[in-house]
Amino acid sequence: MSPDKQTSQPFDPRGVPKVVVSRMSLYLRELQHLVRDGRATISSSQLGQLLGFTDAQVRKDLAYFGHFGHPGIGYRCEELIVEIRRILGTDREWIVTMVGVGNLGRALLRYKGFAAQGFRIVAAFDSDPRIIGATIEGIPILGLERLAETVRQRQVQLGLITVPASEAQQVADQLVAAGIAGIVNFAPVTLSLPAEVSVVGVDLATELEQLAFSVANRTNSR
Amino acid sequence: MSPDKQTSQPFDPRGVPKVVVSRMSLYLRELQHLVRDGRATISSSQLGQLLGFTDAQVRKDLAYFGHFGHPGIGYRCEELIVEIRRILGTDREWIVTMVGVGNLGRALLRYKGFAAQGFRIVAAFDSDPRIIGATIEGIPILGLERLAETVRQRQVQLGLITVPASEAQQVADQLVAAGIAGIVNFAPVTLSLPAEVSVVGVDLATELEQLAFSVANRTNSR
Repeated sequence: MSPDKQTSQPFDPRGVPKVVVSRMSLYLRELQHLVRDGRATISSSQLGQLLGFTDAQVRKDLAYFGHFGHPGIGYRCEELIVEIRRILGTDREWIVTMVGVGNLGRALLRYKGFAAQGFRIVAAFDSDPRIIGATIEGIPILGLERLAETVRQRQVQLGLITVPASEAQQVADQLVAAGIAGIVNFAPVTLSLPAEVSVVGVDLATELEQLAFSVANRTNSR
Repeated sequence: MSPDKQTSQPFDPRGVPKVVVSRMSLYLRELQHLVRDGRATISSSQLGQLLGFTDAQVRKDLAYFGHFGHPGIGYRCEELIVEIRRILGTDREWIVTMVGVGNLGRALLRYKGFAAQGFRIVAAFDSDPRIIGATIEGIPILGLERLAETVRQRQVQLGLITVPASEAQQVADQLVAAGIAGIVNFAPVTLSLPAEVSVVGVDLATELEQLAFSVANRTNSR
């Protein structure tokens, strides 16, 4: 560790706007691409330019979490990756499960990006006897009756819900009862959950609506 | 139209934060669920409560676009749906295409939520001769060499990119050359596009990172 290393500081997560946290993911991904391309350092204006933000935006976002730049150098890419992963909590491995192995579920089980960011799906669940017992990308598909036992035994922390909207609340209740800490919900329905369980809702039509707004109003949504 | 009807007003889209636009989608979806359940009106605090926002947040968000509440009544659900669709630009039909019919592409072709919100996928493209000529949910899978011709003939406005990261930029360039106005990019890579083309990037690992942040810091990400 170099003596001038500047690192993340304790921060109050309640004081960090959600949109800043989502930009941390964007910065992280861009830095990972830069490192893959052999880049060692980058300035806030260069990083901003790659993502369509101003340099002031980049600096302000990072300032929520500490001081990361080096005078005359900018950000060291590898170092900032480590810091952002620490901020996001992805410097550790997260154990994940999925309920609903339809088309979307299958696509997500085959998606390489989860493992690359430290999310390990250890089992998937479905009620269809025709696929129970199969494996996809080495991940076993189990019957829903084994959900609670699996969550406890494998210490699963996060759950992906990829069932139809009509079944999502029931599945969420089962995940919560099994002791899961957070849910990514892909079903187009708002879940009712205890306050101590975190939830991120993904509504795929929303992305198209955001694009429609941008095109209809001729603004750039980047 | 009742005399007390309050509607959207001209607004400067550049003055609307992206996060406000994304909350319009959330309000719209919740209102659509309410109407399906037979609900006619709702107050800002009730709407906020369903989504985990304060009533002040709901009122402030909507105030970017006009005045929508009725004294003593609150919002009329059907009316507000019409207004939000007008704001988002989804009061018309959008013609959409997709490039990349792998697992994610197949899932999205079967996803009912797009059509429900006014997005019509008229054709999908792939380079794999084994699936060219097939149809999924009535949508024809065509070879990539027919992309430009199809975009022009069908007046396609928006494109979904669901190819691997290594092919995404090339596909984006083809969509832009064909005259598309906006792209939703599901490939985990930042696209370089002309300023007049809007883009929304969907990185599925990002959703899990946002959840990890929330769980690791014990905040509620809703």
